[in-house]
Amino acid sequence: MRAAMQNLVVFLALSGLLLSPLPAAEPRQGASPEEQVAALLHAQADAWNRGDLEAFTAVYAEDATFVTPNGLTHGRREVLERYRKRYPDQAAMGKLTLEVIEARAFPSGKDAKAVSVAARWRLEYPGQADRKTAEGWTLLVLRRVGKGGGGWEIVQDASM
Amino acid sequence: MRAAMQNLVVFLALSGLLLSPLPAAEPRQGASPEEQVAALLHAQADAWNRGDLEAFTAVYAEDATFVTPNGLTHGRREVLERYRKRYPDQAAMGKLTLEVIEARAFPSGKDAKAVSVAARWRLEYPGQADRKTAEGWTLLVLRRVGKGGGGWEIVQDASM
Repeated sequence: MRAAMQNLVVFLALSGLLLSPLPAAEPRQGASPEEQVAALLHAQADAWNRGDLEAFTAVYAEDATFVTPNGLTHGRREVLERYRKRYPDQAAMGKLTLEVIEARAFPSGKDAKAVSVAARWRLEYPGQADRKTAEGWTLLVLRRVGKGGGGWEIVQDASM
Repeated sequence: MRAAMQNLVVFLALSGLLLSPLPAAEPRQGASPEEQVAALLHAQADAWNRGDLEAFTAVYAEDATFVTPNGLTHGRREVLERYRKRYPDQAAMGKLTLEVIEARAFPSGKDAKAVSVAARWRLEYPGQADRKTAEGWTLLVLRRVGKGGGGWEIVQDASM
């Protein structure tokens, strides 16, 4: 578990900023929208690595749209069901790391209403000789939620 | 060519609006950001169906990021080179149709700075018995360009 946390390095290539681990869903005061979203994705990967698919998918909007090479999934509940089928237990889930390649805020600056993130994901299965490391790409679109500020949810996800 | 135009139906599921064909890059006055972007993608598919990869990729931002299951491509020129390798002639390009599944504007409304579009694409090869229809999904993030209004460019593309 600690090793998984150490592996979980979210790298903001856009800003050249290497983030230190952040507590789940509590980005530091004054964090940019891109940093807030990176912290959220970081916490989401942490949930995956605890085997907690409910928490992992809580980040999706109720009306989220999710496309993969296998098709379209619409809605948070359906996204959760899809993950439950594909990853029925923690052994199948493995250890997730996410590298943010590029984050863009719209409009740019602290009042952004959306952040889109291109990222590289990797699933490793330490100690499971029968499972190979899986790697792929994802493009996520997150919108700001709530009036206060720091909340974001995934509205569109393309993962391959 | 006329058949390809007729096939090119861009469907805005979000608004429930079926767009009639629009002239390239000239959305009607008063079109919403989502409609402007749909018209642009429509014109882009039309360029594809003329075999014009230069025009097809002109819609990409100079610093666009493009991910596919085969990897990451960065920059408009690299996107063009990738397409030229994969689709060396008009026979290889086939006939492209695009169905917009969902378009989201950020912030919502006419002053949106970004529109993200989830779409289904299909490449058909009429009269080429050796080539099968190919289908897939794409998620595009477009940002507004220029001060005047109607211009958009693709900054992120995840296609599979």
